[in-house]
Amino acid sequence: MKPYVIGIDMGGTNTVFGIVDARGVVIASSSIKTAKHSNFDDYIDELYTEVMRIVTANDAVDKIHGIGIGAPDANYYTGEITHGVNLPWPSPIPLARAVSEKFGIPCAITNDANAAAIGEMTYGVARGLKDFIMITLGTGVGSGIVVNGSVVYGHDGMAGELGHLTVKRTNGRLCGCGRTGCLEAYCSATGVARTAREFLEIRTEPSLLRNLDIDTITSKDVYDAAIKGDQLAHEIFDYTGTILGEAMADMTVFSSPEAFVLFGGLSKSGDLLMKPLRAAMERSMLKIYKHDGGPKVLLSELKEADAAVLGASALGWEAKEQPAAPAAPAAPAAPAAN
Amino acid sequence: MKPYVIGIDMGGTNTVFGIVDARGVVIASSSIKTAKHSNFDDYIDELYTEVMRIVTANDAVDKIHGIGIGAPDANYYTGEITHGVNLPWPSPIPLARAVSEKFGIPCAITNDANAAAIGEMTYGVARGLKDFIMITLGTGVGSGIVVNGSVVYGHDGMAGELGHLTVKRTNGRLCGCGRTGCLEAYCSATGVARTAREFLEIRTEPSLLRNLDIDTITSKDVYDAAIKGDQLAHEIFDYTGTILGEAMADMTVFSSPEAFVLFGGLSKSGDLLMKPLRAAMERSMLKIYKHDGGPKVLLSELKEADAAVLGASALGWEAKEQPAAPAAPAAPAAPAAN
Repeated sequence: MKPYVIGIDMGGTNTVFGIVDARGVVIASSSIKTAKHSNFDDYIDELYTEVMRIVTANDAVDKIHGIGIGAPDANYYTGEITHGVNLPWPSPIPLARAVSEKFGIPCAITNDANAAAIGEMTYGVARGLKDFIMITLGTGVGSGIVVNGSVVYGHDGMAGELGHLTVKRTNGRLCGCGRTGCLEAYCSATGVARTAREFLEIRTEPSLLRNLDIDTITSKDVYDAAIKGDQLAHEIFDYTGTILGEAMADMTVFSSPEAFVLFGGLSKSGDLLMKPLRAAMERSMLKIYKHDGGPKVLLSELKEADAAVLGASALGWEAKEQPAAPAAPAAPAAPAAN
Repeated sequence: MKPYVIGIDMGGTNTVFGIVDARGVVIASSSIKTAKHSNFDDYIDELYTEVMRIVTANDAVDKIHGIGIGAPDANYYTGEITHGVNLPWPSPIPLARAVSEKFGIPCAITNDANAAAIGEMTYGVARGLKDFIMITLGTGVGSGIVVNGSVVYGHDGMAGELGHLTVKRTNGRLCGCGRTGCLEAYCSATGVARTAREFLEIRTEPSLLRNLDIDTITSKDVYDAAIKGDQLAHEIFDYTGTILGEAMADMTVFSSPEAFVLFGGLSKSGDLLMKPLRAAMERSMLKIYKHDGGPKVLLSELKEADAAVLGASALGWEAKEQPAAPAAPAAPAAPAAN
């Protein structure tokens, strides 16, 4: 078995990548600008050059087992980015095939939250867990569901969008997906900011948050105010944690996970979020799941700076061969994958 | 491979069993009274005698591959009935071990809805599907979730209780589980009867249902009235189908199933239920799942009389050896990074 994998975290602005060993140590990392290339092949060329630069510098040529890529809307089954809304190239983007052909190394791709789940299972707090749900609390709410040791991809590779569970059926907030009442509209960083704006408009009591421009208020502002003892800010966290805890109780009836793993900025809010979250989860949990204290709520142990690359790299260990191009003529023989 | 399995459907009142072949034909069947025996060992003795009677009569001795049992609250991992609330014996009941020891044949058990899902996958409308969700609409609402060809059991064997997804967060109906707003409180046969009572009390228009005793009204009464063109009865089905369709759209974000399979009395209500259900599901479905028309909604093809035995029997094909006496679910192996 070759000792390293490459993890690539591909975003609309930057593509960050690193060489990772089996214990989850990032040996070396670097990045390129995703948006710089109007042509996808040029992007792949630069990615190859820059990745191989650190591979060569670290004496890792011929020591790479596989390449894993985390990217928004990346489909594990097809190896394609189905709708690359923030990317400058026409969709679907045949990412896994392009990378594995260029590098001559097996490549697998999945969306960021699934990559995070695999990262936690391989290197992080979910080591040894076969059934858990990863929830990423960022600009949106993402999820990666692991059942019996495998990520749930669904029949089309699109499973695990728990940020779009409906948590308010009547008068729910409009979500970015076009529907209303989604978890993401309440429990993401932007959801917390929306709650702040709502509370400030509806209510009249004084609050440190009233010193800020209401239109640009962020979840960080709410956190800072709460830490200073601001009552309204505390109530915003109570509201957020309660909705998330109730939703997590509902998620439990699906796959009865041993644990939830939370990741992302909001998950670092400590008791501000966790106290109402745990209370709501306990209150809403179906009795049969309460044995042994119910599903655990764990916080990611991966360093924020490395987490996306680590998560993606973990997929590299399971990368096998490039997915066949859908109904395309036979690809020229790629260099032997090993 | 031996050519037959035994399927046993164990209820609080009756235990029905049959010999089933690989195509899903019930070769012979019979039943005993569950509640007759105050002693569990006596029950197992009679079950053995009566099952072996039909096995012998059908020249099937030494031709039984395995025994599958569907029973409420049966845990696939432990082989036990955890809380046998309708059974006369102390819980947990070591059912799989007792049966496999008595018969000298491998036995596996699971709850009724999981058994139904395996039955549909083995003999029914879900043949060839690797990702689907079975929903049983009976006195309660049960579910069996299949991901990548396997039933989702969760870390403790208790996964797949979609009847207890919360569909009303405020002023939800009290559910049998002690929580409020569960799907089961609306979309089971008893849920439909509750809706009928609510509608009859709140509203004033005439209805055929007003000729009935409001306290004993059933979902069958509502169906009969709707078939006769009763407007209020139609609206009761609209209400039920809408809630179920919205819940199914939410379930989709979890496992992105290729299909839902509906089973049970209510699922035979035809367009009365299916029209509002499909409309709500389409309206509430996250866009990324709408390709190819979205998840299919299929109706069970198994004959009602045979379905429970067939479902249980399908588990007999995968029965291996008796589970060890009360043990925690197997500790997961630490995922080597390969």
